[in-house]
Amino acid sequence: MSTVQRAIDPATRLLRSMDRTGGAVCVGLDPVLDRLPSAIGASDPVDRIRSFSLGVVDAVSEIAACLKVQSACYERYGAAGVGVVSDIIRAAGERDLPVILDAKRGDIGITARHYAAAAFGGAGHGADWLTVNGYLGGETVEPYLERGGVFVLVRTSNSGSGELQQLALADGRTVSEAMADIVAALAAPRIGPGGWSDVGAVVGATHPAEAASLRARMPGVICLVPGIGAQGGRMEDVADLCGPDGHGALFTASRSIIYADPKSGHDWLVAIRDAASALSDASGVVAGLQ
Amino acid sequence: MSTVQRAIDPATRLLRSMDRTGGAVCVGLDPVLDRLPSAIGASDPVDRIRSFSLGVVDAVSEIAACLKVQSACYERYGAAGVGVVSDIIRAAGERDLPVILDAKRGDIGITARHYAAAAFGGAGHGADWLTVNGYLGGETVEPYLERGGVFVLVRTSNSGSGELQQLALADGRTVSEAMADIVAALAAPRIGPGGWSDVGAVVGATHPAEAASLRARMPGVICLVPGIGAQGGRMEDVADLCGPDGHGALFTASRSIIYADPKSGHDWLVAIRDAASALSDASGVVAGLQ
Repeated sequence: MSTVQRAIDPATRLLRSMDRTGGAVCVGLDPVLDRLPSAIGASDPVDRIRSFSLGVVDAVSEIAACLKVQSACYERYGAAGVGVVSDIIRAAGERDLPVILDAKRGDIGITARHYAAAAFGGAGHGADWLTVNGYLGGETVEPYLERGGVFVLVRTSNSGSGELQQLALADGRTVSEAMADIVAALAAPRIGPGGWSDVGAVVGATHPAEAASLRARMPGVICLVPGIGAQGGRMEDVADLCGPDGHGALFTASRSIIYADPKSGHDWLVAIRDAASALSDASGVVAGLQ
Repeated sequence: MSTVQRAIDPATRLLRSMDRTGGAVCVGLDPVLDRLPSAIGASDPVDRIRSFSLGVVDAVSEIAACLKVQSACYERYGAAGVGVVSDIIRAAGERDLPVILDAKRGDIGITARHYAAAAFGGAGHGADWLTVNGYLGGETVEPYLERGGVFVLVRTSNSGSGELQQLALADGRTVSEAMADIVAALAAPRIGPGGWSDVGAVVGATHPAEAASLRARMPGVICLVPGIGAQGGRMEDVADLCGPDGHGALFTASRSIIYADPKSGHDWLVAIRDAASALSDASGVVAGLQ
């Protein structure tokens, strides 16, 4: 199994994309059939999802810093759905849009290598980044790094996330802080000239009180930040995650962008572009990139 | 999204399969190309993996209590590989062999529903059980239970698993014990007439000192037990997991069975059948099923 040869490392590519767009927005693709615009012509479910997804890629490619593909929404259509993920990543690549495959994989090392192959190339997909679950320990995260970047789940945005993640350890940390320390240890030797690593973390915007402390625990770790919008999180409340140079957080929004309501006389792609553009501008202000 | 209609629930089906085979063995399918028998005729990688996998299903269907399909080994071949998973699960179903899809999924609730659809039916696969990562909390495990059974990662078999799982909590538990308690709470209202639930746990055979305590913490929770053989775990050292009626543990072995060396004059399928049969017999003795 050979290491994927990339022109630039995932972190550098992402920083450049933030700078080019003047924002820190990741558009999340998690389509469900019953919310797709009626203007999508195809009748087969997988064709509809593909057509919609490729439309979104085209609409946001010059606005978003990154695209996040929610693997589950495609996997539910079996092999045909997984083929759509490859189509999306290929289309994003042609438009120089970095891609996070949001698949939350995690397994022992020998199996992690297979998941890395699936996410990052060869006969699998060609994503830049993969979301990863570190419950099995840091050693199970390392195999991915031979092929791409990772965002490790640290403090997730869902309302019940604290059931395990906020338990208090005997040493005074919480479980999620312990996970943050594992992530920081993996990231430390991999921080590039731009000051950021290809080992990132998922930190929900729904926990503003923890943002400053998690940023301090994880120097050089870019945070992928879900929970904006529908889940009630606000970018300005977790601005600490952006760090001093503004590249430390990537705010991800899905439904508020991909299902944006078209204004009268405009089509759904214009609505998506407008919503992405507004969020990107706002994120650029929060991050200090504009 | 409709609930899958099953003739019997996953736990009852698994118990019956243990009783029928007089053992508690789960054969793990995690094929890699360079270890396949030369007798496999196909040249295309995906065809080789399919041919091998279907051969294993046929060889062990009357011996193993269950089949475990390691999703990563197929996902690395993209959509074509995912199609093979469906082929395997269909073939196992025709032979009345229960299937665990070992994909270690885990995401917020809305996304968990998509993963459940992918694993348990419709346009996705038709597995009986799915391995699940509970780092996001018990609420994210519940959506799967509308459609099938789960084995939640509690104490994994890999050597670095303790980095997070064995951290001490302020209340005296370890992180994995806290996860065991989350699993037990999910399982309690779902224990069937046979005494076991469709909420199971993954507990590695490489931690014998913890077996009795984890069994006590998780009444009615069937443990899927990896780490036998290549990883150094022994069934007899974790026999406590089997519980008083012997149905509480399902011992999973992969490489030691699917790559069993054929005796002179026998083919690879006979070697696999013999290895599965020997382990099933031994497991039946350990569990008290024989």
